[in-house]
Amino acid sequence: MLLGERPGRTVLTRTICARNGSAYERVDELATEEPLEIRVAYFEAGVERRQSIAVTMRTPGNDFELAAGFLYSEGVITGPEAIDQIAYCTDVEGPQMYNVVTVHLRPGVTFDPERLSRNVYTTSSCGVCGKASLELVRTVCPSPPAGDFKLRPELILGLPAALARAQPVFARTGGLHASALFDAEGRLLLVREDVGRHNALDKLIGALLLARKLPAANTIVLVSGRASFELVQKAVMAGIPVLAAVGAPSSLAVELAREFGLTLIGFLRADRFNVYAGAGRIEGLGTG
Amino acid sequence: MLLGERPGRTVLTRTICARNGSAYERVDELATEEPLEIRVAYFEAGVERRQSIAVTMRTPGNDFELAAGFLYSEGVITGPEAIDQIAYCTDVEGPQMYNVVTVHLRPGVTFDPERLSRNVYTTSSCGVCGKASLELVRTVCPSPPAGDFKLRPELILGLPAALARAQPVFARTGGLHASALFDAEGRLLLVREDVGRHNALDKLIGALLLARKLPAANTIVLVSGRASFELVQKAVMAGIPVLAAVGAPSSLAVELAREFGLTLIGFLRADRFNVYAGAGRIEGLGTG
Repeated sequence: MLLGERPGRTVLTRTICARNGSAYERVDELATEEPLEIRVAYFEAGVERRQSIAVTMRTPGNDFELAAGFLYSEGVITGPEAIDQIAYCTDVEGPQMYNVVTVHLRPGVTFDPERLSRNVYTTSSCGVCGKASLELVRTVCPSPPAGDFKLRPELILGLPAALARAQPVFARTGGLHASALFDAEGRLLLVREDVGRHNALDKLIGALLLARKLPAANTIVLVSGRASFELVQKAVMAGIPVLAAVGAPSSLAVELAREFGLTLIGFLRADRFNVYAGAGRIEGLGTG
Repeated sequence: MLLGERPGRTVLTRTICARNGSAYERVDELATEEPLEIRVAYFEAGVERRQSIAVTMRTPGNDFELAAGFLYSEGVITGPEAIDQIAYCTDVEGPQMYNVVTVHLRPGVTFDPERLSRNVYTTSSCGVCGKASLELVRTVCPSPPAGDFKLRPELILGLPAALARAQPVFARTGGLHASALFDAEGRLLLVREDVGRHNALDKLIGALLLARKLPAANTIVLVSGRASFELVQKAVMAGIPVLAAVGAPSSLAVELAREFGLTLIGFLRADRFNVYAGAGRIEGLGTG
């Protein structure tokens, strides 16, 4: 299936469909899943150093946005000015070179790989808990997202259909998560897709970062799956005031949204939704 | 929401339901999401050392199985005899103690934290690619899963209904992934649930490991979501010969399944399914 060339977003494969007691062969389109290694190149006392900081299983495409968005939402960089350039790794040969991205930080930008490995990988050396995770967000993101608007319920109910129209790869493969950004009038601004739901949101945040559009005040992000702690954390970091999920939220997602004044909507369907935090931004639902 | 006691699998919270132009408040049951830090205690030259090796966002419950299953499916331990005991961390106070689990290895069991951090966290120091990930599985799992049986298509079609009957928390919260193990006659053997789909499978594998039932020859595992590379990898490591997913498989999941002789079923519904690898184990679908 890997033919030695740059991997695309989907690959074709043979499958056998069994249905109603009969079976037939056909060609199926699958979402590509490949590892992406994210490296940071930084200067320490005038000497350039490189550090591998994460490997994520992702769908190829928008890789530079994914790397930039990951660094931003994990608190490694605080803005686009920290980045000198982003490049595929030229010391890796063949198709693998497209699976390694290096983010070159500008001279003078401080980077502590130790701190990152504590946050992302082990979170805390003295025992982790929900409170410690909340503490982490509190440290890097002191102000709640800005979104001083009132959304009509009908506008919210229309978001999934708008995402479905804009998610062509999912429609073909059924295998991708999506994150879609809307303005306060419900106009679709940006969509990113990935086999990993965190990656889809990191790609979206990275695109905003590189376009110098963060924090994303007065926007709504719709995610195709469930709302986890990490998705709410990333939305808070990006300054997105409303997160709507097609699926269920987790306990910690609700807790984090309430603390940071994010509006959290779950189980969003064409005719209904639940509001778990920040109902004040929705018309007719009180001051939440 | 966190009341200072041992966290349960679900928590109750207030939500506002908007539906058909009206809104009402009700109490909703959410899947609990809390971080779990997995530590390994091991002996090196007669001295006990401890190393934090991973933090995963998980639903509390079956935490020892999760820790044991993670270590097994990542190739850190090769069997239950490597484990002396598993315990919550007594040097962490309050509810956090239930978020830190230490797996104590027996004296004489070798553990190289460097190797683990390469595999799990960065996978490779010289650039990663699909081939490198496959290589990793090849190294630790030389033999394909054993499953010399023929499944009737009707048996496969009945698995999702059997899982739905056995997944009580999902039915209430809509927020949990499940992994269910069946024997070759379609009898449900074991179910584990988690907000994370990898965790649900690690809990299942950990339960089998601690009950000394690995490798799980002649079994079928059904997962509630999509089939990713990592889920196929874990199934191969556990010796489970058939993986069926309700959702779509990824490109790398299909590639790994074909290489290791795993039967991979996707888009499994009550009336149909697709077979991407190992069709020889299904009656009427050729020698796959």
